[in-house]
Amino acid sequence: MILEVAVLDVKPGQAAAFEQDFARASVYISAMAGYQSHELQRCIERPTRYLLLARWQTLEHHTEGFRRSPEYLEWKKLLHHYYDPFPTVEHYAQVYERRAGSPA
Amino acid sequence: MILEVAVLDVKPGQAAAFEQDFARASVYISAMAGYQSHELQRCIERPTRYLLLARWQTLEHHTEGFRRSPEYLEWKKLLHHYYDPFPTVEHYAQVYERRAGSPA
Repeated sequence: MILEVAVLDVKPGQAAAFEQDFARASVYISAMAGYQSHELQRCIERPTRYLLLARWQTLEHHTEGFRRSPEYLEWKKLLHHYYDPFPTVEHYAQVYERRAGSPA
Repeated sequence: MILEVAVLDVKPGQAAAFEQDFARASVYISAMAGYQSHELQRCIERPTRYLLLARWQTLEHHTEGFRRSPEYLEWKKLLHHYYDPFPTVEHYAQVYERRAGSPA
């Protein structure tokens, strides 16, 4: 599993509209092959900042599958105009995980 | 639930030792009140970069509980010397989540 990470700085005053359009855009990403989950988190210290965490089966499901799809054009149209600056996307592979109550 | 997020840039050549010490240090964070889970992710595009995602019941479980605990001193001793620059920590609150197979 691959984690896609993007810090999203949204233009001031547009948070509510962005959150609504993010929910609308979610239909496109969640329909893609290799999609596993995604979440949007809002920063407490800096409320114009959001974090997108999307989990994909492989890197290529995101970089080739989603980014070259017609669904991505809809995603872009709904969301990209909210960002300033335009975000950098990074991909991560998990090296450690633990949950409360699980053995060491 | 609150998500603690830190981008960790580890000094070149120290990735393997860092990953080992991170696993050792995990005993301290996971013993704290309000701890829910944590994961370490390694960046594919920049392999000296890691992402720590820790989930806490409330913000104060991290900022007051963990950071003022004796366990945090052990965590620091094991891990802080690996970082350059020293990381900024941010906290996030979830505004949206979806998983494959779940209804819209």
